[in-house]
Amino acid sequence: MSLRSVANVVGVLQVFVALAMLPAGAVALGYGDGDARGILLAAGITLVVGSGTYRLTKRAGAQKHLTSREGFAIVTSAWAMAGVFGALPFLLTGTIESPAAAVFESMSGFTTTGASVFADVEALPHGILFWRSLTHWLGGMGIIVLVIAVLPYLGVGGMQLFRAEVPGPTPERLGPRITQTAKLLWLVYFGLTVAETVLFVLGGMTLFDAVNHSFATLATGGFSTKNASLAAYDSAYIHWVTIVFMYLAGVNFSLHFKAATGRPAYFRDQEWRFFTLIIAAGAAVIAAANLWSGDYGALEPAVRDALFQSTSITTTTGFVSADYELWVPGSQMVLFSLFFVGGMAGSTGGGIKTMRVLLLLKQTANELRKHLHPRAILVTRVGQQPVKEDVLANVVGFVILYLLLCAGGALLLGIMGNDPLTAITGTLATVGNVGPGFGLVGAADHYGWMSGAELSVLTFLMLAGRLEIYTVLLLFHPETWKARKSYH
Amino acid sequence: MSLRSVANVVGVLQVFVALAMLPAGAVALGYGDGDARGILLAAGITLVVGSGTYRLTKRAGAQKHLTSREGFAIVTSAWAMAGVFGALPFLLTGTIESPAAAVFESMSGFTTTGASVFADVEALPHGILFWRSLTHWLGGMGIIVLVIAVLPYLGVGGMQLFRAEVPGPTPERLGPRITQTAKLLWLVYFGLTVAETVLFVLGGMTLFDAVNHSFATLATGGFSTKNASLAAYDSAYIHWVTIVFMYLAGVNFSLHFKAATGRPAYFRDQEWRFFTLIIAAGAAVIAAANLWSGDYGALEPAVRDALFQSTSITTTTGFVSADYELWVPGSQMVLFSLFFVGGMAGSTGGGIKTMRVLLLLKQTANELRKHLHPRAILVTRVGQQPVKEDVLANVVGFVILYLLLCAGGALLLGIMGNDPLTAITGTLATVGNVGPGFGLVGAADHYGWMSGAELSVLTFLMLAGRLEIYTVLLLFHPETWKARKSYH
Repeated sequence: MSLRSVANVVGVLQVFVALAMLPAGAVALGYGDGDARGILLAAGITLVVGSGTYRLTKRAGAQKHLTSREGFAIVTSAWAMAGVFGALPFLLTGTIESPAAAVFESMSGFTTTGASVFADVEALPHGILFWRSLTHWLGGMGIIVLVIAVLPYLGVGGMQLFRAEVPGPTPERLGPRITQTAKLLWLVYFGLTVAETVLFVLGGMTLFDAVNHSFATLATGGFSTKNASLAAYDSAYIHWVTIVFMYLAGVNFSLHFKAATGRPAYFRDQEWRFFTLIIAAGAAVIAAANLWSGDYGALEPAVRDALFQSTSITTTTGFVSADYELWVPGSQMVLFSLFFVGGMAGSTGGGIKTMRVLLLLKQTANELRKHLHPRAILVTRVGQQPVKEDVLANVVGFVILYLLLCAGGALLLGIMGNDPLTAITGTLATVGNVGPGFGLVGAADHYGWMSGAELSVLTFLMLAGRLEIYTVLLLFHPETWKARKSYH
Repeated sequence: MSLRSVANVVGVLQVFVALAMLPAGAVALGYGDGDARGILLAAGITLVVGSGTYRLTKRAGAQKHLTSREGFAIVTSAWAMAGVFGALPFLLTGTIESPAAAVFESMSGFTTTGASVFADVEALPHGILFWRSLTHWLGGMGIIVLVIAVLPYLGVGGMQLFRAEVPGPTPERLGPRITQTAKLLWLVYFGLTVAETVLFVLGGMTLFDAVNHSFATLATGGFSTKNASLAAYDSAYIHWVTIVFMYLAGVNFSLHFKAATGRPAYFRDQEWRFFTLIIAAGAAVIAAANLWSGDYGALEPAVRDALFQSTSITTTTGFVSADYELWVPGSQMVLFSLFFVGGMAGSTGGGIKTMRVLLLLKQTANELRKHLHPRAILVTRVGQQPVKEDVLANVVGFVILYLLLCAGGALLLGIMGNDPLTAITGTLATVGNVGPGFGLVGAADHYGWMSGAELSVLTFLMLAGRLEIYTVLLLFHPETWKARKSYH
């Protein structure tokens, strides 16, 4: 492992994080809430440390030493760096005093989780609110580029899933080079953000709130500028706009890219059909249960809130339009099940991902059929494409690691004294980058009451969940740290 | 599907169920509690219907029409028949009035689950108590014979798992023919039951209670003759005896068989080492947490109760020596995790089974290593034996179906109005054939307050969980009912 090469690349990325703090500083100056000094100081420190790291580790041809081991280390270190230095604006403005809580909030932003330690976000200065939303937006873009353009080169799930998904014998790349691909995806992401902001403003939202909520939606993040999240807006229009854009953010961005370039392929994509079906079916059951129980008197609000929450949890956004913990148990159980699905591969959504769920269901149906035709050779397919054995093994390994991480996290939180419902759903909501759970971390609650140790456990879980687990866990594998025999 | 052949075999088995009611009738006559008439009437009805079915469906060479489809149908129908006719003693003695509740209690016995609808078992007549325990004991023996001797011929998990487990190139059968194998296993099962009964009596338990608790232990069932389960006995000796025999019942019976014939192979068996490690590790964490929290003042009781509950849940017995819902959240979370493990393959324990958990963990560790050595060919092994791809696919399919069944059951219970904790753990406790869960179906509670519809859902889950899921689900597969082209 060439730590020097890793530090060099992370140093460059840290300079970008420092520069990203400047718009937040500008917002703070504009509103004059007194948080500008702290934010700009944070930007300065981040810039000095980042550029210093870059200079100290620079050497000719360092990039040539990058192998997949360094790749994993760069990705994990970059997100960890963003989480730590992104916490400085909170600490230096005094809006959060505990370092563990500040890192939690920052990591929750960059991992697009949306779990917050703030009990009262409406009391926060504008610059800090904008920084929170910006961490979401940057994290969301980062994850799309990572999953579509970087991870495939490291052999982690990404491109293999795409191969299965895109018909044709060779992997169809979005652009010939990583940078070009990234630019094009950025454009789609940016365009959707602008579109949602405009629609929000047309619905009567202030420009500031509109921009913040759009950042959080497109990243499937979930931070809001309102204590009641989207429930603060008594407007069916605003809720419907949010539903549509949460949904779009949970869809594979390469499908949007294709549609934008005149080659729409949504309906041909089996993962898309499955993803859409899950959200619709979940919403249908919830709406029916809530109407049946008399919690809702009219059809439109029942359907709207059901669809809002079903979309919000499945895409792992975590926005709230109604306190779902007051719903009948059946509706709550449906939402709980959706915690195990996640967005489409190549979206900003977290969780297990619909592609993996779909693959495992198809494989299971095949196993059932094998018992009836013991001698038949049955191939699992997604769309027209047969799924290779090694892709299946990769998916199985991922899901097992995901569930182990959830079990381990819930166990730790339990041992730290939390009731089972809070421990289990708090873990699921952070590993899956959703945000709110049930119990003491429910729809109307926050994470601010937790101890520093508990917040640190959840911070690690958000990071591992966001970076497809393998990426983070490999750093703990002893073989990663063995000296290489070739090279050097 | 030749329904006639299926009915014929199930008719024979039904005659055995009728004959099994006679000892319960004898106990009832002996104690004179007034339940003898109902039990003997139940035996008579079961005998008449069973022998009638057998005669009506008899024809020359019927056995020759048996294929794996009929095999699945026979296994599922046999357990369903036992559940339904085993309910007659409860109904005809008036101890249970609702047919759904009576079938639940009977199925809970035959599937060795141990979930009960009775709030006060100590008020029950002796014949009925004995019948409950006997359904456990018969179900436990049935499952060992099924898994070790019958399912392998149907291609359902059984022998494939054994192949992986027993070193050597060819599957090492316990005996040359099914009947001989079954007889030898029966002997081991019977011997252990007698041994536990003797040890209980030496500890001061009445012979009646000793026999009943031994039946429930060896079957990893969990029905007790006391309302407080084993907590009714204020005797460390009795608890330790129960721990040892629950543990032995959760071990693969072919290992006991080998030990009994002078070829002990416990330590060489990797699944056994893993199973033992899980129970010990779970107990260690629970004991430490309970001592730390001050719930227990002395070491021995803390270790004993921790080991008792860890063994009881892992082996899916469901006996209770202390109300674990009063423990600290961490200890409860450890127990909750153990709901996902289960006994060893080839034991009377239910759940996912330790062999499957072990296989998946090894496969996952391999996947992690693959990312560091992308070109290496890594083979998953249990012991010295490489695990074939089709065995792995079978295990993955099983675990997915298991989790889907749990999710579906919990969802249904939730929609029927149960709180999430009760819905989730009630489902886990029945699919896994454990018995007690958390919430309203906790250590000190029962299932008697549930509606007939809820009990019927759980009855189906107990059956599906007990028969390795595939066996039951295949009956719902449309292809099972297609006419065969060959034969007939």
